[in-house]
Amino acid sequence: MGTRGRLSVEEYVNGILSGNRVVLSRAITLVESSLESDNLLASEVMERILPHTGNSIRIGITGVPGVGKSTFIEAFGNEVIQEGKKIAVLAIDPSSQKTGGSILGDKTRMESLSVNPNAYIRPTPSGITLGGVAHKTRETMLFCEAAGFDIIVVETVGVGQSETKVKDMTDFFLLLMLAGAGDELQGIKKGIMEMADALIINKADGDNMQKAKNAAIEYQNALHLFPASYPFWYPKVGVCSSIKNSGIKEVWQMIVEFVFNSKKEEFFEANRKKQNIKWFYNAIDTNLHHVFFSNSAIAQKIPDYINWIENEKKSPSHLAKELVEQFLNMKQ
Amino acid sequence: MGTRGRLSVEEYVNGILSGNRVVLSRAITLVESSLESDNLLASEVMERILPHTGNSIRIGITGVPGVGKSTFIEAFGNEVIQEGKKIAVLAIDPSSQKTGGSILGDKTRMESLSVNPNAYIRPTPSGITLGGVAHKTRETMLFCEAAGFDIIVVETVGVGQSETKVKDMTDFFLLLMLAGAGDELQGIKKGIMEMADALIINKADGDNMQKAKNAAIEYQNALHLFPASYPFWYPKVGVCSSIKNSGIKEVWQMIVEFVFNSKKEEFFEANRKKQNIKWFYNAIDTNLHHVFFSNSAIAQKIPDYINWIENEKKSPSHLAKELVEQFLNMKQ
Repeated sequence: MGTRGRLSVEEYVNGILSGNRVVLSRAITLVESSLESDNLLASEVMERILPHTGNSIRIGITGVPGVGKSTFIEAFGNEVIQEGKKIAVLAIDPSSQKTGGSILGDKTRMESLSVNPNAYIRPTPSGITLGGVAHKTRETMLFCEAAGFDIIVVETVGVGQSETKVKDMTDFFLLLMLAGAGDELQGIKKGIMEMADALIINKADGDNMQKAKNAAIEYQNALHLFPASYPFWYPKVGVCSSIKNSGIKEVWQMIVEFVFNSKKEEFFEANRKKQNIKWFYNAIDTNLHHVFFSNSAIAQKIPDYINWIENEKKSPSHLAKELVEQFLNMKQ
Repeated sequence: MGTRGRLSVEEYVNGILSGNRVVLSRAITLVESSLESDNLLASEVMERILPHTGNSIRIGITGVPGVGKSTFIEAFGNEVIQEGKKIAVLAIDPSSQKTGGSILGDKTRMESLSVNPNAYIRPTPSGITLGGVAHKTRETMLFCEAAGFDIIVVETVGVGQSETKVKDMTDFFLLLMLAGAGDELQGIKKGIMEMADALIINKADGDNMQKAKNAAIEYQNALHLFPASYPFWYPKVGVCSSIKNSGIKEVWQMIVEFVFNSKKEEFFEANRKKQNIKWFYNAIDTNLHHVFFSNSAIAQKIPDYINWIENEKKSPSHLAKELVEQFLNMKQ
């Protein structure tokens, strides 16, 4: 096979299933591509590798910028690799579209993890809408699973709407916080705290240790104001220091315990099925939107419609309905 | 005309334009109806009354439960009525779907306003999705404008996603807060503070007066951390007491000043056009979703698709695409 151009479906499938990172990366590039033909090829590969997916623990990690997500993920990654696991780190971060990619945007991020053969780090594709990123991150996750990664971390910045997307594609959702960083909520919306399965206070080292422990108690009390996420799990609070590498093992043990309980209560698979069905319904809307707006006859009509709305006080609602009817009457 | 059954388009149009409240209410009931035929009739009426819409000031009001939105809106309503205005109060409140309607759910709410001939209060329709409520609230707003209301207040509870919808359909967005209610942000997401054109601290009376004034200063400082919403307007902070009727006139004057500046800078109409175009695009997605899922052939296929996702590990993304293609190839 060449190093450029496309491979055959067979080559992608075999490469991914044998854990070939170069092929994996090239398959993900197909997923992220804006070319319809690339996406079609990716879709064929996906169909073939799907029976080999689903065997990882999918972990969502969020926290405001500055909370130390990268150093945490690096420490966490090294910990699970020591326990014989392989970890893939993906990002779903719409804000990085502006700055040009947050993961590895700064080359010093996850320095040791990025060169570890048991870790795979994939930056956010840029120039894609949040909905698009979520969709592509899902498919990327499945490719990584088929390539043999046991743990997939999906990183997001805890300030926007991307958390719901990440929650919808992961098994365990971890919120990183800092102690005493001024505003108690640190820009983290309550809705995000509510979806966390664990709240970990990072940078619990040196002078900060006692503050972190106090904050942990406060958060633990605060979390008890929310209803339990699942009958078998109350959101847990912990402290850690990513740079001192303390408390990291405990986070991993917490996740293992969660997965154990979750599988015992038959929640784990049920939750994934629910996520897939939600994905299906979202994908229908996304596809409808896509076929509508990529129709050239529609595209030609839209300026007139905008003009009628802007200058002739026509009803946006009525015009939308009319245009959709026209679309449906066109020969597809 | 009878008091039951439908009126003719002509009767609805004439009734609305002459400010007949009974006809207005019945027209809004058509908008809120889940019957396709009712919506079609509403749409015909809408086309006819559209040239008579747009002459109100549209005000969005939000705040967490307990902040005193109803008493504020009552005091505010009585104030503007004294100045010769007519006010309509609508609600876009998905949470009320559970409790069965927040406005007037408690009969004592807006007691004096609800019997004032220059006020019109319409509770949230229940059993509709947030997107649906937003759409119907927009149309209801236009009907009220055609019926001669100068001020439309759209009320929402400041805890969910409905604020963006309200921001997208109003000219001025007002956030009601309390002083010293524990958590500084009172469950109000920062994103909501960022979209506010004014932040009013309610219940500034008695022992609470000094606290309210101090809080106003704090909030004013905090708001300056955000970028200005528009070149001509920096979010303003004020205090008021709805029960003592103090500070209410000032809120109205603030809104008048905003509208004056907004029109002078040619932002007012431009913003409404932008809102209408966004509405158009949203309505296209909503319509596509609706025609797809109300197609009986599709509805028959969906259980198989769900089954393939749940039990045969088929790709939700691939299946969604396939089903959309099938839909487009059907004779509409």
